[in-house]
Amino acid sequence: MPTSFLGSALRGTFFFIFGLWWSVRYPLKYLRRKTNAENQPSYGLRRVEVFEGAVKAFFALAGILVEQFVPSGPHLMLYSPKTHSWTDLTHWHYTTMYLFFLLSGIVDVVSHSPLKLPLGLDRLSLSVALFMEGLLFCFRNYGDAALDQHLHSLLAFAIFAGALCVLLEVFLRDHIILECLRTSTFLLQGSWLWQIGFVLSPPWGGPGWDQTDSSNFSFLTMCFCWHYAGALITLAANAAVSRCCNESCQLRFGDIDVELDCGLCIRKKGSGGALLPEGGTEEK
Amino acid sequence: MPTSFLGSALRGTFFFIFGLWWSVRYPLKYLRRKTNAENQPSYGLRRVEVFEGAVKAFFALAGILVEQFVPSGPHLMLYSPKTHSWTDLTHWHYTTMYLFFLLSGIVDVVSHSPLKLPLGLDRLSLSVALFMEGLLFCFRNYGDAALDQHLHSLLAFAIFAGALCVLLEVFLRDHIILECLRTSTFLLQGSWLWQIGFVLSPPWGGPGWDQTDSSNFSFLTMCFCWHYAGALITLAANAAVSRCCNESCQLRFGDIDVELDCGLCIRKKGSGGALLPEGGTEEK
Amino acid sequence: MPTSFLGSALRGTFFFIFGLWWSVRYPLKYLRRKTNAENQPSYGLRRVEVFEGAVKAFFALAGILVEQFVPSGPHLMLYSPKTHSWTDLTHWHYTTMYLFFLLSGIVDVVSHSPLKLPLGLDRLSLSVALFMEGLLFCFRNYGDAALDQHLHSLLAFAIFAGALCVLLEVFLRDHIILECLRTSTFLLQGSWLWQIGFVLSPPWGGPGWDQTDSSNFSFLTMCFCWHYAGALITLAANAAVSRCCNESCQLRFGDIDVELDCGLCIRKKGSGGALLPEGGTEEK
Amino acid sequence: MPTSFLGSALRGTFFFIFGLWWSVRYPLKYLRRKTNAENQPSYGLRRVEVFEGAVKAFFALAGILVEQFVPSGPHLMLYSPKTHSWTDLTHWHYTTMYLFFLLSGIVDVVSHSPLKLPLGLDRLSLSVALFMEGLLFCFRNYGDAALDQHLHSLLAFAIFAGALCVLLEVFLRDHIILECLRTSTFLLQGSWLWQIGFVLSPPWGGPGWDQTDSSNFSFLTMCFCWHYAGALITLAANAAVSRCCNESCQLRFGDIDVELDCGLCIRKKGSGGALLPEGGTEEK
Repeated sequence: MPTSFLGSALRGTFFFIFGLWWSVRYPLKYLRRKTNAENQPSYGLRRVEVFEGAVKAFFALAGILVEQFVPSGPHLMLYSPKTHSWTDLTHWHYTTMYLFFLLSGIVDVVSHSPLKLPLGLDRLSLSVALFMEGLLFCFRNYGDAALDQHLHSLLAFAIFAGALCVLLEVFLRDHIILECLRTSTFLLQGSWLWQIGFVLSPPWGGPGWDQTDSSNFSFLTMCFCWHYAGALITLAANAAVSRCCNESCQLRFGDIDVELDCGLCIRKKGSGGALLPEGGTEEK
Repeated sequence: MPTSFLGSALRGTFFFIFGLWWSVRYPLKYLRRKTNAENQPSYGLRRVEVFEGAVKAFFALAGILVEQFVPSGPHLMLYSPKTHSWTDLTHWHYTTMYLFFLLSGIVDVVSHSPLKLPLGLDRLSLSVALFMEGLLFCFRNYGDAALDQHLHSLLAFAIFAGALCVLLEVFLRDHIILECLRTSTFLLQGSWLWQIGFVLSPPWGGPGWDQTDSSNFSFLTMCFCWHYAGALITLAANAAVSRCCNESCQLRFGDIDVELDCGLCIRKKGSGGALLPEGGTEEK
Repeated sequence: MPTSFLGSALRGTFFFIFGLWWSVRYPLKYLRRKTNAENQPSYGLRRVEVFEGAVKAFFALAGILVEQFVPSGPHLMLYSPKTHSWTDLTHWHYTTMYLFFLLSGIVDVVSHSPLKLPLGLDRLSLSVALFMEGLLFCFRNYGDAALDQHLHSLLAFAIFAGALCVLLEVFLRDHIILECLRTSTFLLQGSWLWQIGFVLSPPWGGPGWDQTDSSNFSFLTMCFCWHYAGALITLAANAAVSRCCNESCQLRFGDIDVELDCGLCIRKKGSGGALLPEGGTEEK
Repeated sequence: MPTSFLGSALRGTFFFIFGLWWSVRYPLKYLRRKTNAENQPSYGLRRVEVFEGAVKAFFALAGILVEQFVPSGPHLMLYSPKTHSWTDLTHWHYTTMYLFFLLSGIVDVVSHSPLKLPLGLDRLSLSVALFMEGLLFCFRNYGDAALDQHLHSLLAFAIFAGALCVLLEVFLRDHIILECLRTSTFLLQGSWLWQIGFVLSPPWGGPGWDQTDSSNFSFLTMCFCWHYAGALITLAANAAVSRCCNESCQLRFGDIDVELDCGLCIRKKGSGGALLPEGGTEEK
């Protein structure tokens, strides 16, 4: 199955953006929780998670539609009656993958509705989505492309680490260490998908790297480690920056931190203030 | 070892029915527990679990007898003195598989008797049954049938996921997320066994799918994911329907919900009412 | 590496005896604890565990000496200067295996001494012994003997299941379900070692089973499941018998149950009675 | 990738020293905690951990510099324009490995600073470092060197055992059993790296062991077990010695035990005494 640079990069961007967003959100949540010693999820935090779920579902739906209706796509046809064989299944593969992220997004949204789904269902659905992604990459048909397989088995490593981490979060919810680990696996997955794109189908055209050169294997294994080091450093830097911002905000610009985590500000006020988020914070 | 469509479909039906039943029962149990804030298992709930165990044991026993005494079966003979070799071991394989589900059913029944077995033994026995099923499918002799092996390794995936989930339930009993996960793996296993039947020995006769076509492998991997998506949607739909029924029952037809989970109704009354389940609920 | 029937049977007997002993001891412990609602380990229980550790260490030491000093053994020589190669390493393999059980036995004894080792060290050392046993069987050199390897990989299954179970017991001590699981894996390992002896070197002489017949593989996989079913039934039967004995003892022969778990009887009395176990129970 | 004796021995020494240090420190910590029944980490304990982290980071940084700037090293060049290929990647491999230990050391130091990082981040970073080390050894290019691969797969065993153990410590901090297990895996890794050096490139020159002799495989598997037995015995001996020292110190030389764990002594005094560790203990 061929890998296009654009597809790989778009997928990578999706994961990377989620990782970046979490690398700001979770350290902030941790700091606030520590300062305020209030543990229960607030109305505003819930709004952030609903928004996250909606974005996830939207991206997944967009991905499905793009995969199906690009000119070379299958246009929802699975079996081609002309050739009496399956149509090119690559697009269907990614459609299936996105389907589970769509489900995960929907569960995120619904689980914060007044329906009162059991706590942890959102984490479980994300974990299932990651496991299915890993399963699809593992059982993909790589043919003789050994380097392709090596790259994707390293990717599967990142995916399954994330899936296990999210599965643990079902039972240990709001554990900052697990949230950081999840964030780092998403950053890793995102940047590694970009790397896969560059290696297998460089954007400047030309063939991909030599599939038979064993030093490429060694280099890419190392490269994977550097990506993870990069992901950890990105996470640390974002956490440090958001911490500084948080502190200076609390000291001097008490009413600007609405942007980042507005619900937590609203919570400090009475129930009436929830209708007037921006104005409300001035009353502090 | 050849796979017959009928056998695969019957096995699939067994798992699917259990999955369907649980997809109604566990969401209801969760809702009731939340409403009533009573956590201890009631007399009626116990009756439901005994019934479940008895049905499981009955199906398993029936399966053993059918496998042994169909015309082509081994009729309890393991070694054929005529050919100086083992008889066809496929039937014995399934007999062994059912044996552990029979044990699990018996433990279910006994663990709710006044004998007071340790809590969690029923889950452990179900987990052992699933592990043994997975072990038997893993070490089966597939010969050159690569597609057969692929189908069964995907099945083993579903089986081991279920087994691990049930094993966790030994320690985290009555955890709604784990119960949903188990339900979904049973639904998946059930529908996948039907799929295996259709692929390897179509009911309309003719040979199975081409064992050497690599696009069949890709398609079936995807198909497995769709089955799981279907299982999750079935679970969600059943949970939603049972929730609606539950709410309308509690509002309008307070004395009809006896059918689904009668013990919980009985519990609300005194000890004498346990003898009159239908009549008793009118007194509320 | 050749397997002798006698060696395999002796090893099997060791594991089987431990399994049998635990299948009596743990159900009894569970019943007593439930009746008395006293959770702390008593002086007598400790004596039983010290005894267990001493027996384990003795058997392991005896095994080491036998492996080294049988006529065909290496007599503590590792490198043969005559042939400029290693001596037959099979005996050294088993010596290594027993060494860890010896360590485990010593830790059992020492951890109940007044030295106050951390709780759980005895379980950890048993887990390490089992992991090392599994490692040695996994990396053994089977050459072309495919059936030999199949038999030992099934054995490794039982060993690692036991090792994981004991490892969990480090954190969840005195969990009756884990203790039963451990007991069943020891019974399984014991009876499977006998089976290996019968298959690879039958005691009535003659060659072992055909290493190339694929139906042998299928049969032995099934056989492994039956062994486990047998182990579970043995465990259940022993638990039931010890329960009946326990109840009739408590009713009628209150001072005879000293044999099985004497410490628990002693505990009922004052501190002075600990010196007079048999006589003391009459005072009840 | 060739293995040099000196490199392997230096790496081994690093792990062995850490193992030795922990085999003294953790038993002492356990004893003190038990005696004093004070659980919260003290100012002095924190100083010890900061020191540990600094040493780890220093060794890692030194390792990186040595790997890069030895005469045969890549001098920070990754791609050689002359040969149009990667430079020898062995040095880069080890550089990557040390990079994660450097990160782990930095996290250790920072997490005891007044920044108040979340508890458990130091353990997570050590676990990540070990997982990355294992990953790099697993995906290394061994070519046809089967014995080389066998030796490193045994090493990976020790590494992953350590990584899992440290990962568990994120959730079960200050668990003496886990700390002992971690210590033993570090001792094992250290001594096994020495063994690898001796086998693959003996310090007295000459070629390494025969890569094709199957008895070498058997012997080295056993040898690995002996190394672990040795690690356990070293751990036990060090724990016993430190226990004796601790007891005699407390009895007779109350003010000498400053050396080993000085913070705990300081803690007994007021806040002012922290500036005068040696003198302060005389006031007891």
